Formats: sequence, C-alpha cells, structure tokens
Amino acid sequence: MNQDNLADRLLEAVDEKKNPSVVGLDPRLWRIPEHIREKARESNDGSFEAASEAIFEFNKGLIDAIHDIVPAVKPQVAFYEKYGSHGIEAFIRTIRYAKKKDLIVIEDVKRNDIGSTAEAYASAHLGEVDVFDEESFSFDGDMITVNAYLGHDGIEPFIDHCKKYGKGIFILDKTSNPSSSELQDLKTEDGKRIFEVMAELISEWGEELVGKRGYSPVGAVVGATYPEEAEMLRDIMDNNLFLVPGYGSQGGTADDVIPCFNDDGYGAVVNSSRGIDYAYQREPYCEEYGSEEYDKASRKAALDMKEDILDSLERGDKIPDSW
Amino acid sequence: MNQDNLADRLLEAVDEKKNPSVVGLDPRLWRIPEHIREKARESNDGSFEAASEAIFEFNKGLIDAIHDIVPAVKPQVAFYEKYGSHGIEAFIRTIRYAKKKDLIVIEDVKRNDIGSTAEAYASAHLGEVDVFDEESFSFDGDMITVNAYLGHDGIEPFIDHCKKYGKGIFILDKTSNPSSSELQDLKTEDGKRIFEVMAELISEWGEELVGKRGYSPVGAVVGATYPEEAEMLRDIMDNNLFLVPGYGSQGGTADDVIPCFNDDGYGAVVNSSRGIDYAYQREPYCEEYGSEEYDKASRKAALDMKEDILDSLERGDKIPDSW
Repeated sequence: MNQDNLADRLLEAVDEKKNPSVVGLDPRLWRIPEHIREKARESNDGSFEAASEAIFEFNKGLIDAIHDIVPAVKPQVAFYEKYGSHGIEAFIRTIRYAKKKDLIVIEDVKRNDIGSTAEAYASAHLGEVDVFDEESFSFDGDMITVNAYLGHDGIEPFIDHCKKYGKGIFILDKTSNPSSSELQDLKTEDGKRIFEVMAELISEWGEELVGKRGYSPVGAVVGATYPEEAEMLRDIMDNNLFLVPGYGSQGGTADDVIPCFNDDGYGAVVNSSRGIDYAYQREPYCEEYGSEEYDKASRKAALDMKEDILDSLERGDKIPDSW
Repeated sequence: MNQDNLADRLLEAVDEKKNPSVVGLDPRLWRIPEHIREKARESNDGSFEAASEAIFEFNKGLIDAIHDIVPAVKPQVAFYEKYGSHGIEAFIRTIRYAKKKDLIVIEDVKRNDIGSTAEAYASAHLGEVDVFDEESFSFDGDMITVNAYLGHDGIEPFIDHCKKYGKGIFILDKTSNPSSSELQDLKTEDGKRIFEVMAELISEWGEELVGKRGYSPVGAVVGATYPEEAEMLRDIMDNNLFLVPGYGSQGGTADDVIPCFNDDGYGAVVNSSRGIDYAYQREPYCEEYGSEEYDKASRKAALDMKEDILDSLERGDKIPDSW
C-alpha cells in the first residue's frame, strides 16, 4: 500500500512518461477483435463469462502496449457493469493488471450517495472493506470520479479515504457533453454559475490534501469541449488536478485542453478512450494494422495523442521545465 | 417482460397492499444474524463468496417476511458493490428473488454519465445488453435512481429504456441529507432554487410517459427531511412519482412525508432501510424477537411503519378513496 500523496504520485508518473494523457478502457464487446472474442467463447460455457474473459484479454493487450508511454488508465465501469458480476470481475482484473504494470488507475464510476452509503462506496473503491473479522481490499483503484450534487456529506467519506490510503478523486464540475449547460451553467443570484460554485467547493475541500508538488488529489472533471470555462476554472482551482475528458471522439482538440493546464505545465491529465481503444478500426491506423495488431494500432494512436498535446503545450508555452 | 407503464404497475401494487412504503435492502455484514453468517462461512471457501451468500440469505428471509405487505423493495447497491463481483452477484440474485415474489424492485444506484456510457448503464439496469450475437437481461430492475447533474443527454437513454421496457427512474432532486442545501438550495438569478429548476426539468422529461393513472414513471427523489420543500415540489411535479428516503433512522416522521403525496393519496412511496432490516436489534422489537427471528421483527416493523404512515395520511385527509 503506497500512502504517498496521490497527486504527487500522478505528477511523478506524468514526468516519467513526459506525457499528461490517459487511456480510457471502454470495452465494447462488438468492437473487440474477432480472434479475442472467439477464443473467449471457446473456453467459456456461459456467454457472460465469455464476455468477461474477452474484455479482460482485450484490456490486457492494450495495457501491455501502452503501459510504458502513459501514466494512467481510466476504465469506465458502465461498460463492465453491463455484464453484471462477470463484468465487474473483468473490471477488477483490469485494475489489478494495470497496477501491476505500474499504471495509476482512475476508476470512472461517478459514484455518489450520502453518509454510510458513500462510506460503503469509498471503502469498496479506495479503501478496505469488512469481510467478517478481516479488512480486505475490494476494487482498490487509485482514483475514482464522483458526483457532488448531494453536497459535502456525500464527498467527505471519499476524502477521508484519500487521506488514509493515499488515493484521489475527481469531482464532476463542468462536464464535456452538450447539455452539461442545463444545470451546470445556471447563474446564481450572486452572478456565479453553478460550475464556479462547485469549483470553489472543490478547491476548499481539497485544500488540506495539497502535496509536495502543490496539487491536491481532490480534483475536478473539466471537459475539453469548454476551453473558456476551463480557463476560469483553472484560476479558481489552481491547486486541484483536472481530469479532462472530451478530447478526440467528442470533438475537443489539443489546443482546447491547454487552458486546463497551469503555466508550469502541470495540473491536468487528458483522457481519450474510443480513439485509442479502437484505433485499428479507424484512419489512418486501419491502413497499417489489422485486428490481430489492434494493440500496436492503439500504441501508435496513444503516441500520436501525446505528440499532439505536447505540440499544443509547446505552442502555449506550457511545457514543464524539466522535460 | 411486462411492458405496462411502470407508474401504473407501482400504484396498483400500492393499492393491492394498501401501503405506500418500501423496504430498503441495505445489507451490513456485521449486523446480519450470526446463524446466517456462520452457515455461509461453513459452505464457502472464500470470504467474499461467503459474504455474498450471507447477504443473499439475509435478504431472502426479509423478502419472504414482507413480500405480501409492501409493494416494493429498494436494494442499495453500494452495500453489495463493496464485495466486488461477489457482492454484485448477491445484488442480482436479490433482484431476481424479489421479482419472483411479485415485488417491484427499485435499484438504488444513482448512476449518471453521458451518451453511450449512460446507454450502457441503462441497458444493464433497465434493458437488455449485447452478449455476442444475442441480447440478454443483466440486472433487470424495475426502476433505478439516477443523478441528473449532467443534464438531459445523461438522462435520455434511461427514459428511452423506460419507454421500451416498461421501466421507471427516480431522479435525485432534493435529497434527505443535511448538506443537500449546498448545491440544491442555491438560488438562480430568476429566484428559483436549483431543486426547483431540477423539478421543472423532471416534470418536462416525464410528461410523455404519463400512464393511465395520471403518473409518470420518470419520478424524483425528495427527502422526508424537508417537508416544506416537498410541498412546493409536489406542485411543480404533480404528475411525477416521488421516492421519499429519510423516514425513520434519518429523522423524517410520518407527518413529514405527507406533503409528498397528492390530495388523491397517491404519488409517493416512502422508504425505510435500517429501521426495518435490523429491527431485531432495536427497541421495541428486540424484546420480543431474537436474531433467529430477525425476519419476524422486520415484518412487525414494516407493519408498524405502514400504520404510522396511514395514520398520518388519514389525519392529512389523503387516504385514497378506494382503501
């Protein structure tokens, strides 16, 4: 159990790989290469068991292909939960395998509840759970995403686990989807928008956990699709890590994500899921790689993403000094 | 697959039992009677497997004891997810068993995400999932709770599944916890509080699904601990079902929940979890029932809750005419 501040650990990993990008692991069964699906079906009687096996094997290939070039992976639990307990088994196997490969694992679970229920989620995903007379790790991710619509007493148990176990959270603030404006952009009577109020809360909640490198592992989700809002949010939450979804498939460009970084070149990690996972099915990668080489296609796509973001950081004069 | 409107089905079940209360199934391993825990440990090698078995057996006893007196149960997934894939197995077994006993199952999962990810959650919990060349049911609950901080495009896939599969959702609006005010009570520049804005959205989103009895299965979570707000919300969402947590252990009284009902005596179901599940451990039930009779204690507590709410409905002149 590594109890160092997670923000420090994540930034060290970003420095080591000279790369602030994250690969999302969003397994869609019908897009997994045929040879993996066939093998899983041959060696499993039940179809949910076979789905679980195919998902894990697909992820294993991706992790093997990208573990030395990215600091973290972000499995989205919905695509595993689809397959019930068997899907959750694949999710947990993926977390363990990625950690073994020294990747930081961000579970994209967007969990939220109150009091003892939030405590149950926190113990499951970030800490230890009671199993009869023992305490055992269950999911044991490094970070999770959470939703703070319920306010502070739904977030506190997660923060407590961040402290105790050296973990981190990303709280939804300004999300990347088109209708995020419906609620998040409403102006309060003070003239602040909801996502600004949320940002102030996140900044306050994260304060006591700021690590050696000046960042708190109590971070925020800020979509790449809203660069102007990101700039404002970077000012409010200057000490908080940002998880930035929306790059690539959702339309966010490398230039769009630059406002999520501080002037020191740190503070954000940018996620891409579909664009990396299924690179073998899209231009230009599909010309060079077949489905048997999906992992190589994904590696190439991850390297291209890194270059794309580094070019933009360079242009924005935000490349970290030590790189 | 019953594709009738879920709001109609829920109200028929409420009429049949003459009871608008719901039993939450929140298994806490250390509070499960010793004889169930011991038996589960004896017949399972792994401790997570034993935890899963103990949880299911405990729930089975509760369901057997209350299925003829309440219309619905509400398992809270956090207490199952704690135990990873084994916990999810117990959760799904609980859903199946409760449905076999003709109970409506409200999965308390508070899921939320966008686009194809919300679609994955919706297919898992309310619809069918793709497993290679087939479509299969996965969790197959009747209703789930969801969080709409992300706006309409995070809710639409759930509503689509409500239409297609005859299911329902409860969207978090004004939650029962103390710090729900932090975000939900903020006043917008129009003078409306966030929970009122959310209520207007819920009312609008639910409109096209209103069933024969005048209610939509696109409902709202409104805490028993805020009766004044509930009264206002009942006016805004006159056609939407309310799920009302916070009665009992959280401090809400039967009188507090009455504003959640319309004048016709319908429109809300009131949940109690800990107060029913562990009745055998509290006054007055612990005097009459030992841990071997936890199920009888829970039945008695559920009947007392029913009486308590019916008395208050009576006093508020809100008992349905046909009762």
